[in-house]
Amino acid sequence: MILNKVEKANIEPRITLVGAGPGDADLFSLKGVKALKTADVVLYDANVNEALLCYAPEGIPKVFVGKSTDDEDYAQDAVNKLIIDYALNYGHVVRLKSGDPFFFAKGYEEIDAAESYSIPTEIIPGISSATGAPSLQKIPMIYKELSESFWAITGTNSKGELSEDLYTAAKTKATIVILNGIEKVEEIASIFQAENKGLLPVAVIQNGSTLEEKIEVGTVDTITEIVKDKNISAPALLVFGDVVSLHPKFNAIRDFYEAEARAY
Amino acid sequence: MILNKVEKANIEPRITLVGAGPGDADLFSLKGVKALKTADVVLYDANVNEALLCYAPEGIPKVFVGKSTDDEDYAQDAVNKLIIDYALNYGHVVRLKSGDPFFFAKGYEEIDAAESYSIPTEIIPGISSATGAPSLQKIPMIYKELSESFWAITGTNSKGELSEDLYTAAKTKATIVILNGIEKVEEIASIFQAENKGLLPVAVIQNGSTLEEKIEVGTVDTITEIVKDKNISAPALLVFGDVVSLHPKFNAIRDFYEAEARAY
Repeated sequence: MILNKVEKANIEPRITLVGAGPGDADLFSLKGVKALKTADVVLYDANVNEALLCYAPEGIPKVFVGKSTDDEDYAQDAVNKLIIDYALNYGHVVRLKSGDPFFFAKGYEEIDAAESYSIPTEIIPGISSATGAPSLQKIPMIYKELSESFWAITGTNSKGELSEDLYTAAKTKATIVILNGIEKVEEIASIFQAENKGLLPVAVIQNGSTLEEKIEVGTVDTITEIVKDKNISAPALLVFGDVVSLHPKFNAIRDFYEAEARAY
Repeated sequence: MILNKVEKANIEPRITLVGAGPGDADLFSLKGVKALKTADVVLYDANVNEALLCYAPEGIPKVFVGKSTDDEDYAQDAVNKLIIDYALNYGHVVRLKSGDPFFFAKGYEEIDAAESYSIPTEIIPGISSATGAPSLQKIPMIYKELSESFWAITGTNSKGELSEDLYTAAKTKATIVILNGIEKVEEIASIFQAENKGLLPVAVIQNGSTLEEKIEVGTVDTITEIVKDKNISAPALLVFGDVVSLHPKFNAIRDFYEAEARAY
């Protein structure tokens, strides 16, 4: 019993939020591996590659905290409490989040909750699928005259709606990447159509960086049908912008439009 | 002489473009380490942590190709040729670029040149400083009502000018990260001032993720003076947006403005 007490007294709660990357277990940082090796418990999300768990010590709890409810606020609150509880009772919590923890992954909510309990926190950035998945497909975010900026927008804001930013984005020359928006592809395409951008190139990438990766390329006018025909579903991201025309799959589309233009 | 010929015949040219991350050698991917281990030659840029070179075999050429001229187009063209030349003569070229090769790092130019010689290419994404450096400072890109999107813009476009996208960006609620723009901080701040955003929080991060990291926090109205006073210089990025108010250094600024408001 005394032993137990001594162990308890030695617990130093701390939390490391680690970006697990876009999916490929090798697109994970050396710093993330080091954090996992010193973990007393690991909490991980959906879309985190479970192969990463092998870097953590055997026998420690490895807890899946992927969403179990549609009420996102409730789910996030429950995860925040779980992390704190594990830190106080086990010590070093490594919290694995897909992509980068501070990009789209709601890492700040967890850090903020932990710091209100005076638990020290650390962030280890990861490769976001927003940039990583197009990179792997050789679609650059910024390229000469085609694009001077990259705008990543959530398709589902804290109210569950499309972000208002999309209406401005559709007016610009930026490369636009939309996460968590695949179910709203028709609505998103219509925003670009309203700006007369029906022929703007669009790519959709599902399960980027994994063996299940799918990429399809089209235009604003055709992307909704492509998503339906090819059964593209979450996790998937949309890339709108002239840089998509650099993808080899776009060549056939360009040829088609050029032939059509010649016919008239 | 025959031996030499046989060796030449065995050369299989290929190029792997690898993101070296924001600076910390541990913010490098396992996949990048694997690529370096099979390199026949490594070409690396300025701002790449040279500690990464130790993963490559001893005795192979490790060539620094950081900028030696102000003529960027000339320099890029010379690097493209060098990469191809090394691939044809040595085999596997690992090209280390700081951050992510396809984000701001002109990776596509190099891939495109190599593919025109039918040399196979592969991309290994990295952690861009655009997202990684703010993450390490616990500044999220997207957070509840504060921001639903993240817009990364080059401060220096292919003509050497500020990107036009900045004028639109200053009108939005997006978190805006500007790379290669620190020398133009006054001009950039004036774009936000023209939108009556003098009190918008701004962070400047120099050498993010390294031991030499510096962060300063202010507002659109004060950031130019801060950059001068604290001698902030490249490589540094600017973050404009309400999410910067979450940084602890912003508390004193908030207190000051609140006290000033009460005084009137």
